[in-house]
Amino acid sequence: MAKKALNIGLVGYGFMGRTHAHAYHNAAQFFDLPLTPVLKAVCGRDGAKAKAFADNWGATIVETDWKKLIANKEIDAIDIVTPNDSHAEIAIAAAKAGKMVLCEKPLSLDGKQGLEMVKVIEKCKVPNTVWYNYRRVPAVTLAKQIIDSGKLGKIFHYRANFLQDWTISADLPQGGAGLWRLDAKAAGSGVTGDLLAHCIDTAIWLNGPLTDVTAMTETFIKKRTHTATGKVQEVKIDDACTFMGHFENGSLALFESTRYARGHKALYTLEINGENGSIRWDLHDLHRLQYFDYRDEGIVRGWRSVHVTDGDQPYMKNWWVPGLQIGYAETFTHQVADFIRAVGEGKPCHPTFRDALETQYVCDAVLASAKSGKWVKCKHA
Amino acid sequence: MAKKALNIGLVGYGFMGRTHAHAYHNAAQFFDLPLTPVLKAVCGRDGAKAKAFADNWGATIVETDWKKLIANKEIDAIDIVTPNDSHAEIAIAAAKAGKMVLCEKPLSLDGKQGLEMVKVIEKCKVPNTVWYNYRRVPAVTLAKQIIDSGKLGKIFHYRANFLQDWTISADLPQGGAGLWRLDAKAAGSGVTGDLLAHCIDTAIWLNGPLTDVTAMTETFIKKRTHTATGKVQEVKIDDACTFMGHFENGSLALFESTRYARGHKALYTLEINGENGSIRWDLHDLHRLQYFDYRDEGIVRGWRSVHVTDGDQPYMKNWWVPGLQIGYAETFTHQVADFIRAVGEGKPCHPTFRDALETQYVCDAVLASAKSGKWVKCKHA
Amino acid sequence: MAKKALNIGLVGYGFMGRTHAHAYHNAAQFFDLPLTPVLKAVCGRDGAKAKAFADNWGATIVETDWKKLIANKEIDAIDIVTPNDSHAEIAIAAAKAGKMVLCEKPLSLDGKQGLEMVKVIEKCKVPNTVWYNYRRVPAVTLAKQIIDSGKLGKIFHYRANFLQDWTISADLPQGGAGLWRLDAKAAGSGVTGDLLAHCIDTAIWLNGPLTDVTAMTETFIKKRTHTATGKVQEVKIDDACTFMGHFENGSLALFESTRYARGHKALYTLEINGENGSIRWDLHDLHRLQYFDYRDEGIVRGWRSVHVTDGDQPYMKNWWVPGLQIGYAETFTHQVADFIRAVGEGKPCHPTFRDALETQYVCDAVLASAKSGKWVKCKHA
Amino acid sequence: MAKKALNIGLVGYGFMGRTHAHAYHNAAQFFDLPLTPVLKAVCGRDGAKAKAFADNWGATIVETDWKKLIANKEIDAIDIVTPNDSHAEIAIAAAKAGKMVLCEKPLSLDGKQGLEMVKVIEKCKVPNTVWYNYRRVPAVTLAKQIIDSGKLGKIFHYRANFLQDWTISADLPQGGAGLWRLDAKAAGSGVTGDLLAHCIDTAIWLNGPLTDVTAMTETFIKKRTHTATGKVQEVKIDDACTFMGHFENGSLALFESTRYARGHKALYTLEINGENGSIRWDLHDLHRLQYFDYRDEGIVRGWRSVHVTDGDQPYMKNWWVPGLQIGYAETFTHQVADFIRAVGEGKPCHPTFRDALETQYVCDAVLASAKSGKWVKCKHA
Repeated sequence: MAKKALNIGLVGYGFMGRTHAHAYHNAAQFFDLPLTPVLKAVCGRDGAKAKAFADNWGATIVETDWKKLIANKEIDAIDIVTPNDSHAEIAIAAAKAGKMVLCEKPLSLDGKQGLEMVKVIEKCKVPNTVWYNYRRVPAVTLAKQIIDSGKLGKIFHYRANFLQDWTISADLPQGGAGLWRLDAKAAGSGVTGDLLAHCIDTAIWLNGPLTDVTAMTETFIKKRTHTATGKVQEVKIDDACTFMGHFENGSLALFESTRYARGHKALYTLEINGENGSIRWDLHDLHRLQYFDYRDEGIVRGWRSVHVTDGDQPYMKNWWVPGLQIGYAETFTHQVADFIRAVGEGKPCHPTFRDALETQYVCDAVLASAKSGKWVKCKHA
Repeated sequence: MAKKALNIGLVGYGFMGRTHAHAYHNAAQFFDLPLTPVLKAVCGRDGAKAKAFADNWGATIVETDWKKLIANKEIDAIDIVTPNDSHAEIAIAAAKAGKMVLCEKPLSLDGKQGLEMVKVIEKCKVPNTVWYNYRRVPAVTLAKQIIDSGKLGKIFHYRANFLQDWTISADLPQGGAGLWRLDAKAAGSGVTGDLLAHCIDTAIWLNGPLTDVTAMTETFIKKRTHTATGKVQEVKIDDACTFMGHFENGSLALFESTRYARGHKALYTLEINGENGSIRWDLHDLHRLQYFDYRDEGIVRGWRSVHVTDGDQPYMKNWWVPGLQIGYAETFTHQVADFIRAVGEGKPCHPTFRDALETQYVCDAVLASAKSGKWVKCKHA
Repeated sequence: MAKKALNIGLVGYGFMGRTHAHAYHNAAQFFDLPLTPVLKAVCGRDGAKAKAFADNWGATIVETDWKKLIANKEIDAIDIVTPNDSHAEIAIAAAKAGKMVLCEKPLSLDGKQGLEMVKVIEKCKVPNTVWYNYRRVPAVTLAKQIIDSGKLGKIFHYRANFLQDWTISADLPQGGAGLWRLDAKAAGSGVTGDLLAHCIDTAIWLNGPLTDVTAMTETFIKKRTHTATGKVQEVKIDDACTFMGHFENGSLALFESTRYARGHKALYTLEINGENGSIRWDLHDLHRLQYFDYRDEGIVRGWRSVHVTDGDQPYMKNWWVPGLQIGYAETFTHQVADFIRAVGEGKPCHPTFRDALETQYVCDAVLASAKSGKWVKCKHA
Repeated sequence: MAKKALNIGLVGYGFMGRTHAHAYHNAAQFFDLPLTPVLKAVCGRDGAKAKAFADNWGATIVETDWKKLIANKEIDAIDIVTPNDSHAEIAIAAAKAGKMVLCEKPLSLDGKQGLEMVKVIEKCKVPNTVWYNYRRVPAVTLAKQIIDSGKLGKIFHYRANFLQDWTISADLPQGGAGLWRLDAKAAGSGVTGDLLAHCIDTAIWLNGPLTDVTAMTETFIKKRTHTATGKVQEVKIDDACTFMGHFENGSLALFESTRYARGHKALYTLEINGENGSIRWDLHDLHRLQYFDYRDEGIVRGWRSVHVTDGDQPYMKNWWVPGLQIGYAETFTHQVADFIRAVGEGKPCHPTFRDALETQYVCDAVLASAKSGKWVKCKHA
């Protein structure tokens, strides 16, 4: 007997829209779920493009006004993949309409806005999640298992960076498709909200809350043409952001992000050092986890390069056979599967809006510190 | 306007069946194709399992007799993912019925059988391809581009190995789901047809035909319980096979495969050394190509680790953004896309049955040499 | 005809003493130098140990009072490998006696003391150098060549860390052989002077002066037995130190050091990102330089792993043949060779005392910032 | 009290001469030995060069006729670093004169000659060793310990290759300094005796004797100018050699060597796969041992990259501190130290001449098989 569908209405159809659409299809095909996720509707300002996207992915409803999508009774969940400055309005409206909400990261433009979103979503009691997809790279999920098992012992250090090099050219405009990330109005911030937010979300998940930070930001290219005005205007986002700080568990934090690290396309790296062991991972070889166990016999002790493709490693029994990798896109598939299961069980699917608000508060503290040059305490969600 | 469908009937529904089903879906979603591949039918001996598989992947026809599938007018192409000993019969019947044929590798149990298949398929003039999927790992396709561009110069060496470790336990039976690969009757040979065939296919594609070989095989575990009889019987497959030889272009060949290399899950590695440069690749980090160019300035010359995820690298503009990987499964998607395009253009999609026969002849020569202890010349397709 | 000797008197005979003794021997044997370095005398508080050390290395003079060594007319140069708190007194006395001075790093306990040393040494006009040996790892020297050639273009980022794990056990005492590094009185600071000083020296050499910093330090184990008193006492050194800052050329600095990074024995890593290229190096594979050149053809662009063992790469024509590595100890040999050549040419051998003072000022700023929680400007030497 | 000296007379002063001279010095300085090795004399056809070499390394006797060296009563041991075709004559004469003999590898031009050398040396009962130095890379010695401890279990595979690229240019002559390796008369064979001999020596040491082989050789550049005649002559050495075979313990052998593998300077790689674990090592990162232990917990199982620089790992307590590498040259130092200790204890220092003869027999079998195209059994020493 066919399972009941969970109908999704997708707002936005850009790069992230494709990853989500792919995930809804694959989740149903590779995971045994209580409900079948169905990409039912697509909404975008450009109707023709939205239609083409919908056709490609089998969505039968096309809208150009997201309010109509939210009003549609057939839709169970709203998935938001628009630029950051529209997350709040759409998510709040969707929640108030009783829809489940899946929102791209970062949750909001800042903590204040995020708090409002959390308040509404929790008041409306709708299932919700934010797409911090890197938690669900099998190697990263495995890291979580290892840490939770106590293998690392007391933690001393957590460091992460997210290095890219795609905005080095001064010829790139701010604004426009894919480039709204350079426009402070649409994006809220630069690498802090775009890249560090990922690092912070994973860090909090793996190592607990941050208490205080001191940060430095830089905008290397001060002026770029704005696509909205056609004029050369001041760039208001941060091209690079570095911060140091403390976690509640006493370990030290060191985070860096930049779009000016030549040679690194999307190198998200994290490392955690504990009394008895350490873990290291990076996105460029995402299926590998580096693991060091001090309790190994001394003469043959060394970093282990764990190829996370076995059936007993997170998510992998649903895919192929040992040695055969999955890619970036499957992290979204995992989140869909976990979300659907959580809905089935009436449990939250982390990161929830509230989880994502905690990340937002760290971003706020980081940006405030970069401005003031002082240590700033992190608020908590 | 919706594109015309190309309806596929899949014979078999095991591990490889899943990879193909996934590929048909994704090819339609990620590539702009002249026809839309549709997994229309599934055939398997166990009707209930076939039905479940069909339901999962949206196939509407279920058969337990592949002859009925071939007789079905709605089906345009037959995709064969059964054990090796049934390829010939099904493929020949399908071709005679005018169906396109996509056949899992190895093409046949041996060259003699393969030649018959080629004769029929070419006489029937049906589009055909064999799933040597590793040609379509973007890094491997890039290797082909580099070699064809002449960057490497005269070639001296080609070496490849495929190392696994999953049959070391003496407790594994021969025969049964997934384990028919240990049963000589179903598989034809052991690692030679299963693993070396992949290495040989890529090698011929990249470096041209092999002329002669000398080989060594070994069966480490001599007896295993056979699932068909329940008795402990002699194992007749090769657990390991190594061979040396020559290519027509004068370069030397060195190939090895085993299922007894502890620590390697599915490590297919290839390296080619030319006068001016070299290339190295392995399946455990499939998105990376190692490239050495002797013409680089001496003091900064070194092996380049190319992260093959950019839009100008093979297939990657259809996927995500630089730095974000695809996985093993997408190699099948690429083959579907290329097959459909080839059908649209009335051109062959390599490797064709004839291409795969060339590989079969090398396997024959290898197995003959291992038996005789002498050098054996390779027949050519 | 035998070359004139340059007679060295070594003060101290511990771990660093051995590296220097080895270097004097090897420099004479592997490099064509204007003077022959001769380890003539050894001075240490324990006369028997000093004698044994001297015998092993062919030194014919043994002293227990460094003042006698300095007074000895036969000695041309004083080499100081004692704990940090005695550098200044010995170096100043040696310079005043007209001896050349080679001093282990860090130059001094702090900038104030360092400045005094610089004043004296420059007034006395004696050749001088400080053993920041990592500049002379061939791969690091090659990095300097590449940067100076302009290959990287405008620099955006410089990051370095020095990670160790040898003091994680709470059972280690402070003070004593090898462990004076945990005793603030003898060492001046913890990882800042011991490890970060190396990173800072290289950074200034490669990327120019730092202007300002903000730092964080931590002492994970607050109390340890002191070998001098036998009592459990407060640990006053920094176990970990992280800082961010700016270089004069506009690039961003990110530095970290710790002795609590499980799995890393002596992992000094540096990376520099420029507009057109990047460089990465680490001490655990010291003969390799990672180099990325954005001007390489796009499809085959990647980080190059340069095995720095060729005759046209720095220092290597004096050693073996391509592919054959040298080790850690040879960095000291290179410094001896360069020092002797500089003496022969009447030129300074960098890093001089003044160069090392610049590093000391950065350390001072780092420690001051860690205390105040504020950004601190760096003084300049 | 000073130790008794063991006076060495070195015949030859080229590249290998330097490595040995360095080793005699360092062995005395870094190892506590029963006798002090002293490089007393140097012999070479060019007296001026021999004198310069002797001066540099502190040798006080210079000869141009090795017979005089052997006749010299002051000399305890003769060290032979001349081209291969003179090993036998010198070694035999030295042994007959009662000198200890240290001989560069390969022992001889072939097994027949080697057997004669063994007979004499054993009859004369003089301590003897052959410089297969790679056994004494700490990581390789550690591999031996691991294998001997039984950690790997039953062995299935042993593979090794030695890849270089320095003779690709057709402009290189055969004969002359450094290039006598291309001259069959002086070298005996090409890569087989020069490079594979190393691989075979290590293999026999780690995995026991080889029983039979089948081989393939190639000479890519057929003619080169000979420095002796000035004429373009046929090249009679093997540029590349590959062989397969069996070990007595039932494991499979796969060996390859070439000087035409562009991008590899001196890449000696070995891997051994056992039932419970595997080991991998290569010369380009000689201080690292890759170790896989199947008994590690499944989810965190992976190849361990062991940085062999700790005091409890072979030879390393005599050098620096964890994390700090030694280089290629120290392998010779270790052999000197082990030789002297063996002399002190009246025990053999492996590989002895007899051990090296076993390697020679494998080389003979390999070359014979390459000629005949047939499997050849290996004689045993």
